[in-house]
Amino acid sequence: MEKTSPISQMLNDIATCSASNDGVTRLPFTPEHRGAIEKIKTWMIDSGLKVHVDDAGTVIGRLEGSPNSPTLLLGSHQDSVHNGGRFDGIMGVLLPILALRKIRNITLPYSVQVMAFADEEGVRFPTALIGPRALAATLDMDSLDLKDDNGISIRDAMLKFQLNPKKLDKLDIRNTPLIGYIETHIEQGPVLYEKNLPLGIVTAISGIERHQIILKGVSGHAGTTPMDNRQDTLACAAELVLNAEKIAKDTTDLIATIGKFTVTPNVVNVIPSQVSMVLEVRSASDEIREIGGKSIIKKLKMIAAERKIDFFSSKTYSQQASPCDERLKLVLQNAISKTGHPVFELPSGATHDASAIADLCPIAMLFVRCHKGISHTPEELAQELDMQAAVDSLANFLTLLK
Amino acid sequence: MEKTSPISQMLNDIATCSASNDGVTRLPFTPEHRGAIEKIKTWMIDSGLKVHVDDAGTVIGRLEGSPNSPTLLLGSHQDSVHNGGRFDGIMGVLLPILALRKIRNITLPYSVQVMAFADEEGVRFPTALIGPRALAATLDMDSLDLKDDNGISIRDAMLKFQLNPKKLDKLDIRNTPLIGYIETHIEQGPVLYEKNLPLGIVTAISGIERHQIILKGVSGHAGTTPMDNRQDTLACAAELVLNAEKIAKDTTDLIATIGKFTVTPNVVNVIPSQVSMVLEVRSASDEIREIGGKSIIKKLKMIAAERKIDFFSSKTYSQQASPCDERLKLVLQNAISKTGHPVFELPSGATHDASAIADLCPIAMLFVRCHKGISHTPEELAQELDMQAAVDSLANFLTLLK
Repeated sequence: MEKTSPISQMLNDIATCSASNDGVTRLPFTPEHRGAIEKIKTWMIDSGLKVHVDDAGTVIGRLEGSPNSPTLLLGSHQDSVHNGGRFDGIMGVLLPILALRKIRNITLPYSVQVMAFADEEGVRFPTALIGPRALAATLDMDSLDLKDDNGISIRDAMLKFQLNPKKLDKLDIRNTPLIGYIETHIEQGPVLYEKNLPLGIVTAISGIERHQIILKGVSGHAGTTPMDNRQDTLACAAELVLNAEKIAKDTTDLIATIGKFTVTPNVVNVIPSQVSMVLEVRSASDEIREIGGKSIIKKLKMIAAERKIDFFSSKTYSQQASPCDERLKLVLQNAISKTGHPVFELPSGATHDASAIADLCPIAMLFVRCHKGISHTPEELAQELDMQAAVDSLANFLTLLK
Repeated sequence: MEKTSPISQMLNDIATCSASNDGVTRLPFTPEHRGAIEKIKTWMIDSGLKVHVDDAGTVIGRLEGSPNSPTLLLGSHQDSVHNGGRFDGIMGVLLPILALRKIRNITLPYSVQVMAFADEEGVRFPTALIGPRALAATLDMDSLDLKDDNGISIRDAMLKFQLNPKKLDKLDIRNTPLIGYIETHIEQGPVLYEKNLPLGIVTAISGIERHQIILKGVSGHAGTTPMDNRQDTLACAAELVLNAEKIAKDTTDLIATIGKFTVTPNVVNVIPSQVSMVLEVRSASDEIREIGGKSIIKKLKMIAAERKIDFFSSKTYSQQASPCDERLKLVLQNAISKTGHPVFELPSGATHDASAIADLCPIAMLFVRCHKGISHTPEELAQELDMQAAVDSLANFLTLLK
């Protein structure tokens, strides 16, 4: 396939809507966001969609079905992380547009809306998913007061972007007949890449819980405190890290990560008196996650007690898993089979717009292979052929869906 | 013993020469240092010493012996860490002054110099021990260009303090007949406290080596990277920390500490791609330290390779152990025995002015019990009775020494 395919053209074109030259930096309610909206609008219109931008900054391209027909939602987010890639999010907006273009001459027995949500990454503001939450009426209006690093609140950023945050509650579409929401996204993990598969069907979006753990021991001079007389919090924390890793490795479908880890006072010749860290536990099964989280915390507490280190933990975040809809998955399976590509299922460890839309209607997700599993960097890559397979599968899906 | 004993009075008095109210903050070449010099001078003169301040800012109180008699040096440092205690350093200046006061009527067959060095802690400037190094002619004159946090070089700080850094090379006393140097210091560790002993004789000041270790793995999304497909540098680092601890615990006279430990990118949902840490190894035996350091590094390298984590290490610092002089130790033993207190020997894990003076003449150290081993905080405490035992032992030492 040539580099000048429509997919590549569109991805390269919209990648120029970026605040950075190194990778894509496109945060919500910025000039880059405005630029992206204009391009998305044009492409949607070219595919025969009727376009508007709602008060959450979501670009919506609608293909009207017969009167009173239910609506199928498709889409993903337009925003990126700082110096992110060209595929995360935006690819899931463009592929459905191309799929609809491909089946333009077919009349569908339902309406279709392609959505480009403003903010999924949560990089500019300490919250995200405003667009899908507004649709599902799960948006906490107080969160609009949250500010970015320049002290600009979400509310003010929206107003400056010619949106009306006061009308966000009008976006509630819980009473609209919806078939479901299909999100296409790069996997952002190595599973499809390692299995040499272009596409994957998501079984569920994993639930997440986070535990803030603080260990308090006794500081001491590294030279004058004998080895057998230490309450070294770093050594204790090291045991906890390895035990969390072991429990997760030994448990099917359980993932545990300690990504945030801070040592105090962090001085070369002082035995650390405190370590704070965040344990994150994920699973596509809420039961496995909850039991796993509890057993990890129980084990860590026991180890800390053995080392005479004070152990404090609190669950600071919890998000239920969102299972994908069986009927939509079945249609996706048939749609992929029709392209000749193998059908493969996997959970999504990452959160997506679909997580928020799960409160509104059935969801399904189509994953596209991600080169080496690398995402959120300029090196992020989805292959042309894989994206074309996704376009073909989505087009099949649209025609197969009754 | 009453709180108004001379020892307490002097310690409380000089503790007021501090830049902070919370604990003592007395850095070299500051108004607090000037205040301390004036008080030390007065007390030295009261004990019959002839006083001057040399060009390194060391206060020297001299008791002249018979012509051509050798000189015994006693003392410690006047400076503190930020918000440090009232004992570290300065106690080792005041107790010899009181010991000399106690035996004022006895004529000694040698000269005595009590020294209050300006800078042992190395808190203001990224180097220390200027005073003793000038005496031993081991001072690197280039180090005078090192600057404090306000951009003031040691040279400029000295000039502003009415010292003449150009004359530092004139302080060389290698050709002066010296008996040795006796430093009295709080232990800064828990050994005497736990053994319920007031005093200890130091066998050697431990040697130190530091290794900067950098681990490089592969970053990844905490949700999308399966447990069996990770190159998690934090989990690898955790194994290294525990193995360093184990090797040190299993080796007599070997201490290993990891006090500095930094995780990158340090984000809750990202598998850490890099950990940098500093391994510090100490021993009173250079052989044990060198073999221990090498075997720890070898083991850590092996573990990192097993986890497919890139391992980089470099030895960034190395300081030989300074054994204490057998003859001086023997006199100290007899001096302590004469007070009725038990004689106990232990290594010093911490560096002291004596480490630098070891290049000049024989050294010995008298440790005073430190409450719970706590030092470098306002809670640092040496008991009155223990300090009195040290004064008595020093007075005995001075009379026993031939």
